Amino acid sequence: MIAALQLPVALTARGRSVVLRRARLDDLGALIRLLSDDAVSASRGDQADPADLPAYRTALAEIIDDPSNDVLLVVDDVDRPLATMQLTRIPGMARRGSTRLLVEAVRVASELRSGGIGSAMMRWVTDVAAPATRSSLVQLTSDEARIDAHRFYERLGFVGSHRGFKYRVELPRTGD
Amino acid sequence: MIAALQLPVALTARGRSVVLRRARLDDLGALIRLLSDDAVSASRGDQADPADLPAYRTALAEIIDDPSNDVLLVVDDVDRPLATMQLTRIPGMARRGSTRLLVEAVRVASELRSGGIGSAMMRWVTDVAAPATRSSLVQLTSDEARIDAHRFYERLGFVGSHRGFKYRVELPRTGD
Repeated sequence: MIAALQLPVALTARGRSVVLRRARLDDLGALIRLLSDDAVSASRGDQADPADLPAYRTALAEIIDDPSNDVLLVVDDVDRPLATMQLTRIPGMARRGSTRLLVEAVRVASELRSGGIGSAMMRWVTDVAAPATRSSLVQLTSDEARIDAHRFYERLGFVGSHRGFKYRVELPRTGD
Repeated sequence: MIAALQLPVALTARGRSVVLRRARLDDLGALIRLLSDDAVSASRGDQADPADLPAYRTALAEIIDDPSNDVLLVVDDVDRPLATMQLTRIPGMARRGSTRLLVEAVRVASELRSGGIGSAMMRWVTDVAAPATRSSLVQLTSDEARIDAHRFYERLGFVGSHRGFKYRVELPRTGD
């Protein structure tokens, strides 16, 4: 976890009060549901398949233990999960030694999209989390298929100046 | 530093043997020169200005101390610096709990470009560093202005499936 982040924190999404907090191990099921509740993610394999539970659990435990990473969860007043994102703090040499705050896996529950929750999350990232972690650059990549998401980030002041490249690696199986 | 990476390692770039090793604090000057030896980087402020030395030094020390990060340097047989890149290992929930290996700030000395050093570095990242760190995805972003770099990554099998967004944050000055 990124210790400098003061969490939980109350956010306001179009007049509705929600809470942004760190995810815990017992949020595993909620996080998997949020990831699979998205057509692009599902097409990449995030389908809430019970067979994938151990891999998700290992990943969540590793993120929680990692001082440079945090998985965050937005919840309502009875702690129902509404949205998630991951933050990674990355020290760097480029841009005169700029520290970057990388945002990954931003997901809002499908029935709540366009309701201001995503904006409230990203505003908190740029205005609170970035200064708190001494990050002078917030960055993220978004699948070219997500046209609406691109407009959303541009409205918030993000500049789509880069092309994002991915290379999939087939890992040898360990253990068995 | 990412402890699982076995370094230094010999790489071959079109028949020429070079060495990939971790950067040390005394490589600071070489790293700053490699960053500034690039028009796009220079336009973003990496101009080897002596006034920026403390910020670069702080960043390099932080990266070296960080268990998730490494700045690497390619050198010739008398340890002359030829190229650099930064690697960050990022555990993640998306894509069924995939760990990612992020590549940032890839720079080859201008007089050596198109000589195979960049290819040798990236091949090592995808074929050696990714499996060694249990990363099933290698990712990077490249400025839209770098058309030649995009073709280079595509030739290596990277897929430019994403848009990369950046948001600059003005940090309040600390100390004085």
